[in-house]
Amino acid sequence: MIQHLVIIGVGLIGGSLARALKASGKVERISGIGRNRQHLERARELGVIDTAHTGFEVVAGADLVVLATPVGCMEALLGKLAPHLGPDTVITDAGSVKTTVVDAARAQLGEEKFPRFVPGHPIAGTERSGVEASFAELFEAHRVVLTPAPETATAAVDTARAMWEATGAEVVQMDAASHDRIFAETSHLPHLLAFALVDCLAQLEDRHEIFEFAAGGFRDFTRIASSDPVMWRDICVANALPLGATLERLQAQLARAARAIQSGDGDWLEDSFARAKAARDGLLPADVLDSTE
Amino acid sequence: MIQHLVIIGVGLIGGSLARALKASGKVERISGIGRNRQHLERARELGVIDTAHTGFEVVAGADLVVLATPVGCMEALLGKLAPHLGPDTVITDAGSVKTTVVDAARAQLGEEKFPRFVPGHPIAGTERSGVEASFAELFEAHRVVLTPAPETATAAVDTARAMWEATGAEVVQMDAASHDRIFAETSHLPHLLAFALVDCLAQLEDRHEIFEFAAGGFRDFTRIASSDPVMWRDICVANALPLGATLERLQAQLARAARAIQSGDGDWLEDSFARAKAARDGLLPADVLDSTE
Repeated sequence: MIQHLVIIGVGLIGGSLARALKASGKVERISGIGRNRQHLERARELGVIDTAHTGFEVVAGADLVVLATPVGCMEALLGKLAPHLGPDTVITDAGSVKTTVVDAARAQLGEEKFPRFVPGHPIAGTERSGVEASFAELFEAHRVVLTPAPETATAAVDTARAMWEATGAEVVQMDAASHDRIFAETSHLPHLLAFALVDCLAQLEDRHEIFEFAAGGFRDFTRIASSDPVMWRDICVANALPLGATLERLQAQLARAARAIQSGDGDWLEDSFARAKAARDGLLPADVLDSTE
Repeated sequence: MIQHLVIIGVGLIGGSLARALKASGKVERISGIGRNRQHLERARELGVIDTAHTGFEVVAGADLVVLATPVGCMEALLGKLAPHLGPDTVITDAGSVKTTVVDAARAQLGEEKFPRFVPGHPIAGTERSGVEASFAELFEAHRVVLTPAPETATAAVDTARAMWEATGAEVVQMDAASHDRIFAETSHLPHLLAFALVDCLAQLEDRHEIFEFAAGGFRDFTRIASSDPVMWRDICVANALPLGATLERLQAQLARAARAIQSGDGDWLEDSFARAKAARDGLLPADVLDSTE
């Protein structure tokens, strides 16, 4: 049982976490911290959080503090909350990039408090954002990756794990660098591509006609381009090295495809498309293929 | 009422067209032509077609002939069926590229028969293929684009239009070059990107781990990479110029994004992502956003 949970950033992820924990009966009280007083009040009205705060004093009595903000403001927030942390408070986050968040936590929390920071990433979300889009079932049957550092206390990991399991999620562990590389490939790069494609098309003079003839395939392909621009800006900046590396490989692949198109090299195109189809049909887990998220 | 319809290529599109027309009661008899006798027999067993043929003689008595094969074999097929065409038979196709198909039809059908060729493209499909995946409702509330040439007979256009309207589709007209440019942007390029991304990832040593952590966003983004490789090979080759042009713009956009990531230029990334989000949220027609295809 969590007596007092503090969530910093009560949006889609923070709000859904609060709803899920309330539904599970595993939390006594939830305080929300945010910059935008109006958004926070809305979260309180919806019953997602019990009390709304724009300062960090409320952190003092917490068992568990969750950072559910864009990755780019985590270092500053960790610096602000550090002085208020009690001796047993566990801190965790829900950021999509882990190495830079771990470095920030190490710098801001210091030797004494850093072992109680548990880096985490729930593999769940939708293209919508804000507390209004949050729902208690968001994490059910989804994975949460924890990437503890060598110094991280086992008891702190257990606390974070128990919190996520109470939402219905399956918790797995890996090191932060592996996490960042894997998610650069399957999440960050696809988002970057979707944003790039739609931004390209949106700059065309006849964009209205072009979008008018978009079919279902385009809708699915570009759904992630409706995601929050600030959140994704931060992810791209924070995970620059692995993302840059996978983007470079993709650029080489596209350059090769462009040559095949120009020269009418149907064999190369067919081979590449067939490899892709075989990988998607064969390697994607069944739950990802079938779920409607 | 169509007395005798011949469908060449009884796969997802040809099979769904046959099913829809049978359900509408607007067709008396459907003959299917294909290379693969086993697939054709399966279509006949399923009641999708009435008779199965591997030769072109059956075309002689047809009111309407529909080519529903990959674009790359249409020129050869038009050449084979031309000698069998009766004086009033209308020919149409369901190819995703129009300019090259129109050129092929002009060359193969000759001055006398080309006016009865109506270039068409149903904007419907799924990532699955084959007659087993076909269903009568595929075209309902979807658009079909007809791109008649200056020589095309109005009566022939009316026949093709009536056929598609009987499936529940909305028929629109535009010129072939506009069609090819628009669909290069919203369909052909997204397919190429999805294939390229998945092919890239499939070549990584730890592809199993990478695909294991793919979430719903990746599933949606890559759904079109499960499409038929031969069909998409043909589309890329047949629509090489418009596709090459839009791919080049996208490559420039990705190069710009790569520089922003490398230099930590969050402002550029946020601006680009925000433009994309605004375009997708604002410009996509509501039916495309809401439909589940």
